[in-house]
Amino acid sequence: MSTASFVISPEDLLKHWQGHRSLTRRVIEAFPDDKLFTYSIGGMRPFAQMAIELLGMGVPSLNGIINRKWEKMEEIDIYKKENQPTTKAALLEIWDKNTRDINNLWPKIEASRFQDIEVAFGMWEGPVYWLLFYNIDNEIHHRGQGYVYLRSLGIEPPPFWER
Amino acid sequence: MSTASFVISPEDLLKHWQGHRSLTRRVIEAFPDDKLFTYSIGGMRPFAQMAIELLGMGVPSLNGIINRKWEKMEEIDIYKKENQPTTKAALLEIWDKNTRDINNLWPKIEASRFQDIEVAFGMWEGPVYWLLFYNIDNEIHHRGQGYVYLRSLGIEPPPFWER
Repeated sequence: MSTASFVISPEDLLKHWQGHRSLTRRVIEAFPDDKLFTYSIGGMRPFAQMAIELLGMGVPSLNGIINRKWEKMEEIDIYKKENQPTTKAALLEIWDKNTRDINNLWPKIEASRFQDIEVAFGMWEGPVYWLLFYNIDNEIHHRGQGYVYLRSLGIEPPPFWER
Repeated sequence: MSTASFVISPEDLLKHWQGHRSLTRRVIEAFPDDKLFTYSIGGMRPFAQMAIELLGMGVPSLNGIINRKWEKMEEIDIYKKENQPTTKAALLEIWDKNTRDINNLWPKIEASRFQDIEVAFGMWEGPVYWLLFYNIDNEIHHRGQGYVYLRSLGIEPPPFWER
């Protein structure tokens, strides 16, 4: 490794992710309770289901990266119907627990891990940094979709640049 | 700097960005010609206008980072009405030129620059890495919105994970 490699520090990448998660939390909050779980455009999932997808990826990704053992997708708690929140308050409570879990887990990623190749969840092969970026990018992608849902409901979403 | 800082190399960050840009190109292509410039949900901009925003940020950001001189927003060529494409073919041509320009400019970013603080476009202060991430994140955000437009038009968008 040379100094040419220094794009972003692990600490700043955590801040970057949590900044996005903070914005996504405000997008969840901006939905009326019922619309969060029911509103859809073009046959897409309601925003709550997208948020549940994100919750099923973040902490399980960190656990896999740290422990080098990957859950199967169907083993992930929040993907089981009976564990899924059905109210905005319950969804936000899980969101906040995940925020704390991510902060606690992050420092356990060894410095050398970011360039290691992993087969995430036994299915997706790539470097650890790529998996972390995938988590963040997938969140931005779905949250952008949530913005359209909100706008079409006549609700102004929180500004994209506020984290 | 310690090895703890090695999350992603500049070369891989370029690949990451161009992977996203390749997907956005396919989203532009997926729109019917007229809908690209006219279709809207909830009072939002048509997808072509979002793509033009992205084009106005990417290369001008790199120029600012490399030359330490920033254009004002109103000086950026593609933000001038008379320079804006009005057909899908013209938009894609500019997109492809920007792809080449980004590839050519990227190696000119000095290794030490990623952590420097810049006031981008004379308005937004932050580290260079943050500005580059903002470009990528903003693209993912708007492209996610384009996915909803496509779905609501009955068009299947390209898979998110294909870059």
